[in-house]
Amino acid sequence: MTQITSSWEAKAAQKRAQLAASLPKEWLVPDELLPPADQDDITAWPATSGWFTPQELRITEATASKLLPLLASGELSSEAVTRAFCKRAVAAQQLLNCLSETCFDRAIETAKARDAHLATTGKPLGPLHGLPISLKDNINVKGLDSTVGFASHVGDPSAADAALVTVLEAAGAVAYLKTNVPTAMMIAETVNNVFGRTVNPRHRGVTPGGSSGGESALITFGGSCLGVGSDIGGSLRIPAACTGLFTLRASGGRFPVRNCRSGMPGQEAVMSVNGPLARTLDDIEAYTRAVLGGQPWLLDSKCLPIPWRETVEVPRKLTIGVLWHDGVVRPTPPVARALKLAVARLRAAGHTLVDWDPVDQAEGTELLARMFVADGGKTIQHELQRTGEPLRPEMEMYGTAAELGTADMWKLHGERTAFQGRYLDRWNAAGLDAILCPTIPFNTVKHGAFEHVGYTGVYNVLDYACMSFPTGLVVDKVIDKAVDLTDPAYAPLGPLDAKVATGYDPETMHGLPISLQLVARRLEEEKVIGMCRSVLAALNESKANGTNGATGVVHEI
Amino acid sequence: MTQITSSWEAKAAQKRAQLAASLPKEWLVPDELLPPADQDDITAWPATSGWFTPQELRITEATASKLLPLLASGELSSEAVTRAFCKRAVAAQQLLNCLSETCFDRAIETAKARDAHLATTGKPLGPLHGLPISLKDNINVKGLDSTVGFASHVGDPSAADAALVTVLEAAGAVAYLKTNVPTAMMIAETVNNVFGRTVNPRHRGVTPGGSSGGESALITFGGSCLGVGSDIGGSLRIPAACTGLFTLRASGGRFPVRNCRSGMPGQEAVMSVNGPLARTLDDIEAYTRAVLGGQPWLLDSKCLPIPWRETVEVPRKLTIGVLWHDGVVRPTPPVARALKLAVARLRAAGHTLVDWDPVDQAEGTELLARMFVADGGKTIQHELQRTGEPLRPEMEMYGTAAELGTADMWKLHGERTAFQGRYLDRWNAAGLDAILCPTIPFNTVKHGAFEHVGYTGVYNVLDYACMSFPTGLVVDKVIDKAVDLTDPAYAPLGPLDAKVATGYDPETMHGLPISLQLVARRLEEEKVIGMCRSVLAALNESKANGTNGATGVVHEI
Repeated sequence: MTQITSSWEAKAAQKRAQLAASLPKEWLVPDELLPPADQDDITAWPATSGWFTPQELRITEATASKLLPLLASGELSSEAVTRAFCKRAVAAQQLLNCLSETCFDRAIETAKARDAHLATTGKPLGPLHGLPISLKDNINVKGLDSTVGFASHVGDPSAADAALVTVLEAAGAVAYLKTNVPTAMMIAETVNNVFGRTVNPRHRGVTPGGSSGGESALITFGGSCLGVGSDIGGSLRIPAACTGLFTLRASGGRFPVRNCRSGMPGQEAVMSVNGPLARTLDDIEAYTRAVLGGQPWLLDSKCLPIPWRETVEVPRKLTIGVLWHDGVVRPTPPVARALKLAVARLRAAGHTLVDWDPVDQAEGTELLARMFVADGGKTIQHELQRTGEPLRPEMEMYGTAAELGTADMWKLHGERTAFQGRYLDRWNAAGLDAILCPTIPFNTVKHGAFEHVGYTGVYNVLDYACMSFPTGLVVDKVIDKAVDLTDPAYAPLGPLDAKVATGYDPETMHGLPISLQLVARRLEEEKVIGMCRSVLAALNESKANGTNGATGVVHEI
Repeated sequence: MTQITSSWEAKAAQKRAQLAASLPKEWLVPDELLPPADQDDITAWPATSGWFTPQELRITEATASKLLPLLASGELSSEAVTRAFCKRAVAAQQLLNCLSETCFDRAIETAKARDAHLATTGKPLGPLHGLPISLKDNINVKGLDSTVGFASHVGDPSAADAALVTVLEAAGAVAYLKTNVPTAMMIAETVNNVFGRTVNPRHRGVTPGGSSGGESALITFGGSCLGVGSDIGGSLRIPAACTGLFTLRASGGRFPVRNCRSGMPGQEAVMSVNGPLARTLDDIEAYTRAVLGGQPWLLDSKCLPIPWRETVEVPRKLTIGVLWHDGVVRPTPPVARALKLAVARLRAAGHTLVDWDPVDQAEGTELLARMFVADGGKTIQHELQRTGEPLRPEMEMYGTAAELGTADMWKLHGERTAFQGRYLDRWNAAGLDAILCPTIPFNTVKHGAFEHVGYTGVYNVLDYACMSFPTGLVVDKVIDKAVDLTDPAYAPLGPLDAKVATGYDPETMHGLPISLQLVARRLEEEKVIGMCRSVLAALNESKANGTNGATGVVHEI
């Protein structure tokens, strides 16, 4: 007899088996068609594998904004589009381990209903008519688990759809699967004890980021054209940056969060938000308009009654603060190059660029960490203890922190509010429209090497509206050389800075996309989307004008 | 030698002396002109005393909406208006003990600057041009203390104006004084160990409510036409109801709170908000438009970028849920009569009135109390201990509560969020536009007898937009007889209900105004103001039609 497995291992194995069994046999790629296990970049595989029909490739390589008019007109059926994405998502799971749950039967049923609606009424159901949308694991779908990486949540299916799912489906979308996350969604990569690790389709040896890394991997592979993640310290922006996608981290209250599972339920000092990940800015805007058009505030007490504001005007000439580094960790050479180039091109386009003092960044990052562990890690420890699941090494701070009493927590709230006030005053004094800065200190990192969520986390503390966007640039090992640590002029900002600089490996990163972050005031989602268009225009205009040299080649992603 | 007073007593005496010394001698009413100490109702005294000039009476008995056009045109100077209100406020202090701080010199200087601006530019400075506005003690004014009733805060003047004061003065208003509050603003009457007790000008033996009771007393007496209070459990609505004023408790984030002193700094599970108190709905709307017009979200990170929404439509026929009682304490006979009459007249006016089940009210009230003492009262105890000030008997729960750890606080947040969700679902299922209910279980009470903030507090937990408004009805001892506790049919809801019923004294309350509360969804401030107009129209229309019998005489207040 084999030894009886402990509770958490049994539950994890049960969950993995359940997920594997949910993948229809006819969509499982035969072993002989799969790329070799040591092939890093598998993004070209779908088109070359022969596994997908031309129609399936046409569908799954299109953006949401291209598919939506075809779905609305009936040129493409929702069923065909849904089946194509389901099939490609199954391949993604085989190659990237990016899924957590599937509901393909529900999806195809919903898709058929969409097609029937269009046939009967002649009208699309809503602005997302017929479009499959992938969902991060924490967004509850009736009948599916939301384990968020905990063995304790295996076999505890949601009784109802999240408010967001209700709004998305009312707009015509089709829920078809959920995607993998790190434990409690509190690691910046995507790894947990239930499903294991999700890898990056652009290089399977590097992370797609986290915590919405199942989404970023799936979308980048083409298994979804539009997905929903969440962000409490960078969990949308980090995976977007690691894979070269667009994302919007809206301020709290813009998108509904009701009946989503939190990794730390009841933690409110910094709010978790959800939002879209996609390959284009148009897709981000389409999602945002559609969700707000569904008046989510009527369904979720945490939502604000602010519809999409058509009247928001983006100044033609922006004033942008540039955070070259945050005083803690400098960006690696490719990110620094992208930031420098973006600044030059924005200046050339007539915008005003000013240096933004990193003076407040370290405190913001520290505040975030203190708020995350204010309960002494008890909430997370409790979930682990229910099944004897071990605390992952990435989450050590949740095992060692001291719990605050509520009186001290109130003081921490006060510190955070004072911080928000100071930052706002500086923003006003500088007359900023936006801050431009790295999303993460690097383009991405090898598995297990992620350090420092400061560039994103400060804006969670501030609850500002942010985007991470691909610059169009990719790492070039010839230009973006490793940091010369022996150079007498090299002076690290501190041990973490030195560690990140040391970890940058041009060989591995060569060819991978470089992203940046654009930050607007709280609740300026329309403006940050509009400003991102201006930034992209400036980046691309130079290209059109042929003024960019070898260091500034803008690649299409 | 007399015994050395303890620290808190010395500080309190110092503060009272400082306040008394700040009242200009020429505005102090001579003893012989004051009404007798045993005169309950002193609202008629200003007009009959001979102390005020006809011009001063004309100014101080006008509403803000009447004064504003006269100030904007220069027909009245800001200086004259400010001096008149300062003078009348001094009398109010002598008779009601309603002030905490004055800044008359600053006010007159500001007023002169307003007049000069108008003379020079021909234009008013803003929508509140030249109007003195009174401020609750917790709203910081540079150079003035914000003791909020604690001896520990005596002699700790604010370094800067609150964001709200900046916005109000930018709109043209004139800050001239601050008003008394109960300790930590956590008692529903207005009494503390520093300034003592504020009394109601309509009957000095009853409370003007709390915690914004300095404001309600001052405005009711005519020492201010427009004031600002705050509300975390009813602190705007309770004093408004106790005196027959209008108030708007906006949802969190609508009005700026930055640099206001909290009684429990950092407590965020239920948000403290501030808002206007005035004698008319027009004044409430004028204030709201003016503050939102000042874009307070640019100054306060907690403010939402929602301008006054002209496009909000109030349905011509409303669906109103009627909360006859909250399952804990029934309204006393006059309040029950007013509610019944309002319902009848709203029905007659074509609105749809449905009963609103009180099933959730007790839980909401309990959640509020648990959130208030989640720190075990430590924050309040700390302020008291700094000077040895004793805990007031009304605040016993802050001395006996057990502190929650943050992990348990997170669970409490979860309970509150679930409660908000259930309430919202019921609201949606009923298709409500509003809830109509008592603001407090009585019209007001004798000093020290206030019980039960449940009718207001549940809507703080829910963060709904609420108004308290005078119905135009007053207590009539002939109609509103004491509850017959010996009637075999009398069945109290519980001990508190019996206590409130027993405490109702028709003789004392005779002639005092009766208010009700109108509740809209979260952040529906424009709609609740508009709906309040509909309710007032229905109440007054019947009067115009002469259809109301003896039980429904609508008195002008």
